[in-house]
Amino acid sequence: MPKPLSFQQAILRLQDFWAERGCLIWQPYSEKVGAGTMNPATVLRVLGPEPWNVAYVEPSYRPDDGRYGDNPNRMQMHTQFQVILKPDPGDPQEQYLESLYALGIQREEHDIRFVEDNWESPALGAWGLGWEVWLDGLEITQFTYFQQAGGYTLDPVSVEITYGLERIVMFLQDVRAVWNIDWDGARTYGDLLLQPEVEHCRYDFELADVDRLMQMYDLFEAEAKSCLGAGLVIPAHDYILRCSHTFNVLDSRGAIGVTERATYFRRMRDLARQVAVAYAEQRQRMEYPWLEEGKISNLKYQISKSQTASSDSPATFLLETGTEELPAGDLDDALAQLRELAPARLEEARIDYESLRVLGTPRRLAVLVEGLAPRQRPVEELVKGPPTRAAFDSAGEPTKAAEGFARKFGLGVKDLKVREIDGGEYVVAVNRQEGLPAAEVLSALLPELIASLHFGKSMRWNESNVAFSRPIRWLVALLGDAVVPFEYAGLASGRASRSSRPQDSAALEIARADDYPDLLAECEIVVDPEERRAIITEQAAALAASVGGAIPDDPALLDEVTNLVEQPTALLGYFEEEYLKLPDAVLVAVMKKHQCYFPMVDGDGNLMPLFVVVRNGGEEHLDSVRHGNEEVIRARFADADFFYREDMKKPLEEFLPRLRTLTFQEQLGSMFDKAHRLKKLARQLAEMVNLSAEETEVAERAAYLCKADLATQMVVEFTSLQGVMGREYALQSGESPAVAEAIFEHYLPRFAGDVLPKTKPGLVVGLANRLDSLAGLFAVGLAPTGSSDPYHLRRDALGLVQNLLAHELSFSVRAGLEAASELMPVGGKALDFVVERLRGILREEGFAYDVVDTVLAAQGDDPFRARQAVEQLAAWVAREDWSRILENYARCVRITRDYDEQFRLDPAHFQQPAEEMLYAAYQDARAKITPQSSVDEFLTAFAPLVDVIDAYFARESGVLVMDEDKGLRENRLAQLQHIAALAEGIVDLSQMEGF
Amino acid sequence: MPKPLSFQQAILRLQDFWAERGCLIWQPYSEKVGAGTMNPATVLRVLGPEPWNVAYVEPSYRPDDGRYGDNPNRMQMHTQFQVILKPDPGDPQEQYLESLYALGIQREEHDIRFVEDNWESPALGAWGLGWEVWLDGLEITQFTYFQQAGGYTLDPVSVEITYGLERIVMFLQDVRAVWNIDWDGARTYGDLLLQPEVEHCRYDFELADVDRLMQMYDLFEAEAKSCLGAGLVIPAHDYILRCSHTFNVLDSRGAIGVTERATYFRRMRDLARQVAVAYAEQRQRMEYPWLEEGKISNLKYQISKSQTASSDSPATFLLETGTEELPAGDLDDALAQLRELAPARLEEARIDYESLRVLGTPRRLAVLVEGLAPRQRPVEELVKGPPTRAAFDSAGEPTKAAEGFARKFGLGVKDLKVREIDGGEYVVAVNRQEGLPAAEVLSALLPELIASLHFGKSMRWNESNVAFSRPIRWLVALLGDAVVPFEYAGLASGRASRSSRPQDSAALEIARADDYPDLLAECEIVVDPEERRAIITEQAAALAASVGGAIPDDPALLDEVTNLVEQPTALLGYFEEEYLKLPDAVLVAVMKKHQCYFPMVDGDGNLMPLFVVVRNGGEEHLDSVRHGNEEVIRARFADADFFYREDMKKPLEEFLPRLRTLTFQEQLGSMFDKAHRLKKLARQLAEMVNLSAEETEVAERAAYLCKADLATQMVVEFTSLQGVMGREYALQSGESPAVAEAIFEHYLPRFAGDVLPKTKPGLVVGLANRLDSLAGLFAVGLAPTGSSDPYHLRRDALGLVQNLLAHELSFSVRAGLEAASELMPVGGKALDFVVERLRGILREEGFAYDVVDTVLAAQGDDPFRARQAVEQLAAWVAREDWSRILENYARCVRITRDYDEQFRLDPAHFQQPAEEMLYAAYQDARAKITPQSSVDEFLTAFAPLVDVIDAYFARESGVLVMDEDKGLRENRLAQLQHIAALAEGIVDLSQMEGF
Repeated sequence: MPKPLSFQQAILRLQDFWAERGCLIWQPYSEKVGAGTMNPATVLRVLGPEPWNVAYVEPSYRPDDGRYGDNPNRMQMHTQFQVILKPDPGDPQEQYLESLYALGIQREEHDIRFVEDNWESPALGAWGLGWEVWLDGLEITQFTYFQQAGGYTLDPVSVEITYGLERIVMFLQDVRAVWNIDWDGARTYGDLLLQPEVEHCRYDFELADVDRLMQMYDLFEAEAKSCLGAGLVIPAHDYILRCSHTFNVLDSRGAIGVTERATYFRRMRDLARQVAVAYAEQRQRMEYPWLEEGKISNLKYQISKSQTASSDSPATFLLETGTEELPAGDLDDALAQLRELAPARLEEARIDYESLRVLGTPRRLAVLVEGLAPRQRPVEELVKGPPTRAAFDSAGEPTKAAEGFARKFGLGVKDLKVREIDGGEYVVAVNRQEGLPAAEVLSALLPELIASLHFGKSMRWNESNVAFSRPIRWLVALLGDAVVPFEYAGLASGRASRSSRPQDSAALEIARADDYPDLLAECEIVVDPEERRAIITEQAAALAASVGGAIPDDPALLDEVTNLVEQPTALLGYFEEEYLKLPDAVLVAVMKKHQCYFPMVDGDGNLMPLFVVVRNGGEEHLDSVRHGNEEVIRARFADADFFYREDMKKPLEEFLPRLRTLTFQEQLGSMFDKAHRLKKLARQLAEMVNLSAEETEVAERAAYLCKADLATQMVVEFTSLQGVMGREYALQSGESPAVAEAIFEHYLPRFAGDVLPKTKPGLVVGLANRLDSLAGLFAVGLAPTGSSDPYHLRRDALGLVQNLLAHELSFSVRAGLEAASELMPVGGKALDFVVERLRGILREEGFAYDVVDTVLAAQGDDPFRARQAVEQLAAWVAREDWSRILENYARCVRITRDYDEQFRLDPAHFQQPAEEMLYAAYQDARAKITPQSSVDEFLTAFAPLVDVIDAYFARESGVLVMDEDKGLRENRLAQLQHIAALAEGIVDLSQMEGF
Repeated sequence: MPKPLSFQQAILRLQDFWAERGCLIWQPYSEKVGAGTMNPATVLRVLGPEPWNVAYVEPSYRPDDGRYGDNPNRMQMHTQFQVILKPDPGDPQEQYLESLYALGIQREEHDIRFVEDNWESPALGAWGLGWEVWLDGLEITQFTYFQQAGGYTLDPVSVEITYGLERIVMFLQDVRAVWNIDWDGARTYGDLLLQPEVEHCRYDFELADVDRLMQMYDLFEAEAKSCLGAGLVIPAHDYILRCSHTFNVLDSRGAIGVTERATYFRRMRDLARQVAVAYAEQRQRMEYPWLEEGKISNLKYQISKSQTASSDSPATFLLETGTEELPAGDLDDALAQLRELAPARLEEARIDYESLRVLGTPRRLAVLVEGLAPRQRPVEELVKGPPTRAAFDSAGEPTKAAEGFARKFGLGVKDLKVREIDGGEYVVAVNRQEGLPAAEVLSALLPELIASLHFGKSMRWNESNVAFSRPIRWLVALLGDAVVPFEYAGLASGRASRSSRPQDSAALEIARADDYPDLLAECEIVVDPEERRAIITEQAAALAASVGGAIPDDPALLDEVTNLVEQPTALLGYFEEEYLKLPDAVLVAVMKKHQCYFPMVDGDGNLMPLFVVVRNGGEEHLDSVRHGNEEVIRARFADADFFYREDMKKPLEEFLPRLRTLTFQEQLGSMFDKAHRLKKLARQLAEMVNLSAEETEVAERAAYLCKADLATQMVVEFTSLQGVMGREYALQSGESPAVAEAIFEHYLPRFAGDVLPKTKPGLVVGLANRLDSLAGLFAVGLAPTGSSDPYHLRRDALGLVQNLLAHELSFSVRAGLEAASELMPVGGKALDFVVERLRGILREEGFAYDVVDTVLAAQGDDPFRARQAVEQLAAWVAREDWSRILENYARCVRITRDYDEQFRLDPAHFQQPAEEMLYAAYQDARAKITPQSSVDEFLTAFAPLVDVIDAYFARESGVLVMDEDKGLRENRLAQLQHIAALAEGIVDLSQMEGF
C-alpha cells in the first residue's frame, strides 16, 4: 500500500486536480474568515451571471469551536478546501468523487454517501441545498448548490464543495487526533498548530477585552459603511469580515447579550447585503466582462426521435428520473406523489394499462407500467349540422350543405344522423377521434408529470432553472424498446440509466422497458423501497441475533435508512464498553441522529457496545467500512464523554446564568428571562388545574430548571438531547426524581407519535412553556405565516392540545394565555391559533368536519371539553331523527338570523295556541340549559321542542311569522330568537351540513 | 516552445519544487501583511536553534505602492513566494536557480545574476545580507541571509528567498503590464485584481478615516500588550500585524506627522521585540522539540591529507576562495587586502617565492604564487652557553659542561664559538632551525589569511559561524599538484573549483596549480580584474562606435560592472526615442544606478536611445538577454515618465506642505520645518559672505525650495535624483534659472570627486543645509560615533569644508553654526567635528601632519584661512633656516610652558643688554603681529627675533633665566612668555615635529 498523502500533499493534489478541471487556483484570504465561503472568491463571485470556477485553501477561524487543543478534532481553526463550480458542470458529484480517488481513497473499499444537509446563513442572506458527504460514516465534505447569497437569487446556481481537509487526511493517515496528522513527512499538525490553537483559545475565551472589541466592531462597521458609500466593495467586505470575526470572539467571551446578538446580526446582514448589491451593480456596470465565454449553454439537448414506429400491441413502459441523492423525506414524498399522479395522468390522457408500479431509490424515481395500450382510447362526439330541412331537399336528397358538413368530418352523407335538438331537427355527425399513439401522448405528459412533483424545499441547478429536490441527471423513458422522446431540465430522455455509486454510476443501457427490474437487480440495486426495507430489517436482525442481541423497533430510523441506500448491506460495528457509562439517550442519539446506526440491546433491554450500520454497496471490504464507522462513532462518543464530564462539574442550576446569553426572542428576552417567567406561570397553572401542594412545588422547581440544560455542552452539541440531559443532570445534581422527570416531560411530545407527559408537574411545566411561547410570540407579531413558523408555534399549540386531551383535563387556554400574558404584553390571536390545532386533531380523529366546526365555533377554548362536545354531537348526528332535530332548530335560526336586533318577546301578545305551546316547551328546555351545558345536555333538552316547532310552522297552526303586522311579527321573531339562542356558547349548529 | 506557465501554474510548480526539496508547504497568513517575512512562519520560526524549511505564497499589501492600477507593475498588493531554509543547506543559490529552471527559464538563454542588496527593518529589529536576483536585468527575487530578527542574532542563520511572482510570470509570458498576466489560461490578473486594486487605492489614499484608524491602532496595540502579558505569542503577533497595516494606511493617507511616525515605529518595534522574546522563550521552555532531527551537523569536513610528499623544488601555489557573489565594493576590498596580506604572511612565514598575483571575480578570490619555495627559510640563533672558563679546562680542553651544551643542539664541541657578552666571555652555540615544508606551514597560514579579510558588513551563514562578506562555498589550495589541506568555514580545502554561473557552477577539478589560469580561460572566466575592465571598455567602445556613439567616461560605473561579472560580454540595447524627452539625469540615473547600463551619447554629447549592458556569459542568446534588458529599462522609463508627468501637474512650491510628513529628525521636526529654517539661515549666511542683494534673494528662495523635490514621486522613487529634479521642476515651475541652479547645487558635492557648486547662492544654500544638520543633530546628541553616522554628518562636514576651500571663501564655521543654532538649541561639538574634516582634507592634500596640526590647533574655524596658513607654514618649513627659527621660538615656549601664571614684565628690571635687545626686537615684531595675522605675517615678523633670541640664551649674554632671584627670574620668564604669545591665535608651533 502506498504511503498515505501528507497534509500538504493532499492540498497540492487537490489544487492540481481542480486546476486540471479548469478551476482557477486562488489563495486563502488576508482576513480571518469563518469559512471559505466568506472569501470574496465565493461570496461575491457567485453573484450575477458570469461563470466562475475556482479552488482554494481556506484556514477558517471559529472561535467558539476552540477546545484548547484538548479535543482530537475540534479546533477554533480548521482548514477548508473550497471549490466553486459556476455554472453547474452537469456532473459535479462525479468530479468530486474523482478528486477523492485522486487523494488515494480506493472507492471500492469504502462507503461514500451523500447525506442531506442544507446550509443557511440568515446573516449573509444566503442558503443552499445539498449534502454532507460521508466516507464510511465520517463527514468529510459539505456539498451545496448555492441558491441565494446576499439576498440575491443566484442565477446561475453555483456548486460549492467544501472539503474538511483535516478530516480527510486523518482518515487517509488513520490517525485519531488532528494533532497527529503528518503535515509534510516530518512535522505533525500539532507541531505547527497546537500552540497557536491553545493561545487563540486563551485569547478568545479568557483574554479578549470586551470593551475594546466592541469599540473595534463599531470602528470596523463605520469604515465598512464609509466604503460602501463610496462604492468600494472589497474594502467594505474586508471590514465586514473583521466585524464578523470580532463578533465571534465577543461571543466566545460570553459577552453578547440578548439584545446585542440580534442587533449585531442585523448590522452584519445589512452590510453583507449592501456589499452584495454593490458588487452585483459593479459587474453589471462593467457589462459582465466574463460572460462571453460562458454564453455557450452547457445544456446539451439531444432529443432522440422515437426509434421505432409505434406498435399496435400493449407494451411495458418505463420512466426513470435519475437524480443526485434525494433526501430521505423527499424520496418518500416523491414516491407518494407518483403513486397518485401517474395513474391519474394516464387516465386523463386516456391511456389504459394493466398494472403500474412506483419504485425508487435515493438516486432514481421510477414508474413501471405493464400492458400500456398502444394508443389513447378514442373519443366520439356529436356535432350539430344544418337543420334537416336545409340538409335535404324536398326530394329527400342531401343538399350541398349536408355534403359539405359530412365532408368536414371525413364522412359520407349516409353517415349523418338526424336528431332533435332544442326542439329543432338537425343533421348531426358522430365525430370519432381516434386516440393518438401512446408514445406521442407520453412525450407531452411525462415532463408535466415530473414537473408536478413538489417538495418541501426545492432547488435550481442549471440554466433550465427547473426546481426539484435535487438535480435531475438523467431521464429514461421507454415504451417497449423505443425511447419516448421528451426534454426536461436540460436533459433529453433516452435509454441510458446509471448504476449505483459503488459501481461508479456507470452508464446502463436499457434495451427494453421490460428489462428494467432485471437489469437493476444485476447491478444489485434494490429499486423497490419495500423490498429494501425488508432486506435491511432481515439483515440487521440476523446480525443482532448472531451476537445475542436485538434491534429495538424504530420505524422512523428504518424508513430513513431505507431511503439512504440503493444496495443495502448491513454490518456490525463495535465500540468500547467504557462508553456505556454514558446515558443511554446520549448513546442512542449519537448513533441514530448523527449516523443512522441501529443501536442494539441485550435480552434485558440494555444497550450493547454494538451497532448495525447499513452501507450502500456490497459485501466487499466490509472491514474497512466497519473500521471507518467505528472510528467515527468512537470520536463522537469521545466528544460526548468529554462534554458529559465537563457538564457534570457543576450542578444544573449553575448553568442558568449562562442562559442570559441565549436569546429566546429579542423583545421577549433571554432564555434566562423565560425560565423566570415559567417558574411563576407554572405555579399559577398548577393552581388552575388543582395540583397538590407537593406537585406544585415540583412544577415550580422544574419550570425554573427546565431550560438550564440548553447551556450544557452536551445539549449545545446534541440539541436533540434537550430535556433528556436536563433530567440526567438534574438527578446527578440532587434534584428530586419528580423534578427531573418534569424537566424531561415538559418537552413532550417532541414529534408526531412521541410519548406524552405522564406526570402532572410535567404536564404543567410543558403547558407553561408553550403558553409562554404562544402568548409572547403572538404579542410581538411573530405568529406563523404561510410556511414560515420559525418558533415552531404550530408544534407548541399542537402539543398543548394533545396533552390536555390525553390527560382529559379541562383547562381554559384563554385563561392560561391571559396568565402568561400578564407576565408580558400580549394580543389575542394566540387562542384562535390553538383552536386551529385542536380542529386539526379532531378532524384527524375522524370526526366529521361539520361536527367539529359546529362545536369549535362555540367553544374551542377548553380543548378537552370541546372534544367531549364533538363526541356527543357526533352521536346525535348518528341518530335517525337527527335531520328532524337539526331542521327544526334550523327553522328558528334561519328565519331570524338576518336581524341584528334582538326583539322583545311578550307572551301577552301571543295569538295562536301554537305560540303558547312553543313558549311552554321553550321554558322547559331553557330551564335545563346553561352556557356550561354540554352538547349532549343541550340537545337532550332541545329534543322535546322538535315536534312543537314542527307544529308551530305547520300551515294548520295559523302562525305566520312574517305577519304584516309589525308588532305581531316582531313578537314571533323574538320567540324564535330565544329558541335559537338556546345553543349559544354550547354549539353552533349553523355550521352543520344541511343546516 | 512550450506555452509559458500561467500565474497559478507558476505557484503550483514552485510549491512542488520546494516540497520535493523538503520544504513544508505553508499558507498565506490570515492577516494583511506587508511581506511574507511577517508571516509567523518566517518572522518567528527563524528564531532559535531549531531547523525550519518552509515555502508559501504571500499576497503582500503595501498601501503606499498603490497607483490606482495605472502603473503596469506597481501595486498596493503583490504576490510573494517565500522560502525559508534554516539552516543554510550549503547550496541555496543552486537550489534557487534550479527552481527558476523548473519554471521554464532556460538558463542558457538568459543572464541571471546575484546583485548585492541588503535588507534591514529597524522596526522589526531585523537585518540580513544578500542580493536581488536579476534575470536579464529584471529584479525577480530577494535572496537574503537573515542575520537578526526581533533583536535576536540568528543562530543558525536562515536563508530567505522571496520571489516576486508577478515579475517572474510577466517575464515568462512576455507581457508588459501585470494586469495582462494570464492567471489560469482564461482569466487575467487584471480580471481578478484590477478592481480590488483601484478600490484599495481609493480607500488607502482618500477614504480611510484617520481618526478611526488611529483609534483602531490604539486598540490593537492594547490587545497586543495584553496578549504579551499573558504570553500569547500568536494573538499578540496578529495584533501587531494589524497595527502595522493600520499604520501603513494612515501613512498613505498622509496622516502621519513627524512625531507620530517615530512614535509609531518605536511602539511597533517594542511590540515586535517582545513577541520575538516571548516566542523564543516559549520554544526554549518546550526544549526545542524539533532540534533532535537537526542535530546532525550539515558541515561535512573532508580534510584530504596532502596527497604527495612535499617536493624539494619550488612549485606554483594556488589559493582560491570560492564564494557566493561578493558585492562589488567587497570584491575591491578583498583584493586590496589580499595584495597586502598575502605577501606579508608569506614573508612572516619565511616562505620565499618568485612572483605573486592576486586575482578575483565576484565568485572567487585567488592568490597565485609562482616559484614558491618547498620549505621555509631556516633560522639561526646564537644560544649563550657556560662561561669560557667553565667550558674549557685549564688545558683548553672542553669540559663536560661544554659537551653537554653542545649536545643539546646536536652539535659537536668544535662547533661551539666563543663570544664576549656583557663584558664576560662565553661559549655560544649557533642553533639552526631548518624550515618546515611549505605545505605544512600553509595549512596553518591559509585559514588565518582568509579569516583576516574584513568587510564593511559581514555575515554568518552556517554552523561554523565564520563571518565573511558572503558565504564561502569552496576552497582550492594546491601546491604543485598536491592539495594543501586545511579547513575553514565548514569546508575542507581541495582541488575542486567551480565554473561560472552560465556554466551552472559545474565542478572543475584542478590537477596542478599551474593549470589554473588556463583552466579558467577555458571556462571563459576572466579572473584578472584588470583584464576584465579592459575587455569591457573595449567591447563597449566598439559597440558604441558601431552606431556612431560614445560611452561617456565613468570609472566608478566601469569598476562596478567589472566586479559584477566573471565572463563579460557587452551588448547593445535600445529604448524608445520618446523617452529622450525625460531629463537626461533621470535617464542616466535609471540606466546607471538601477541597472548598471552604460548610457551612450552622440557626437554632440546628447543621449542616444541606446545603452550598453554587460552580461555575465558568452555570446549565446544575446537577443533574449537584450530583449529582457530592454523590457526592464522600458518599464523603468515608463515609471519615470509617469512620475514626471504626475509631478509636473503642480508647481514645485506646492510640494512643500507634503514635507510635513517627511521626518528630518524627531526632535528637529519635519523637512518642512527644515525648509523654513534654511530660508532664514540662508539670508543670514548670505550677509556673512557678502552676497549681493540679488544673490541673497536667489539664495533665500532656493533655500526655501531646495527640499521640495523630496516630495515628488520621481525623487521618492529615485532618491539619487534629489536636487536634479528640484532644478528641473523649479525651471518648469517658472523659478529663475539661478534659483533652480542653487537648488541643484546645494547638494554638491554628493560624493567623492563630484563637482562643486559654481554659484554663490548654491554655495550658501548648501552651507545653510549642512550647518543646519550639524548644529541640529549634534544638539540632540546624534553626533556620529564609530562607524555609525546615520545622518551622514561626516559627508556634510566634508562637503562644507570642500566648498569653502574651493570658493576660497573665508567664513567662520563657528559663526555659521551659531546662526544655525539660534534657530534651534545646539551644543558646541559640531565645530570640532568640522575641523576634523578639514584636517583630513589638508592631510590628503599632502601637507605634513605636524604642519596641519600646528595650524589647526590655533585656527580651524575658518577652513579657507586655515589652508592658507598651512600652505604658508609649509613654505617656511621648507626653508633651510626653519630649524633655527623653530628652535629659537621653541626655547621661549619650552622654558615657560609649565607656568600657568602670567608673570609681569618690567623692562626697568632688565639687568643685561641682551634683555634690552630682545625687548626691542620683540616690540618691533609685536607691532607687526595681530591675531588676524597670517602665519606668513607672523613668521616674517618673528624671523628677526631668531638671532636675538639665540644671543639672549648664549652663555656669553650673562642671562640666566632661571636665576635664583625670584624677581629677576620672573621678569625674564615674563619676557619670554610675551614672545611665546606672539603666535597665539595664529599658529601653535608646539605641534611641530622637533619642537
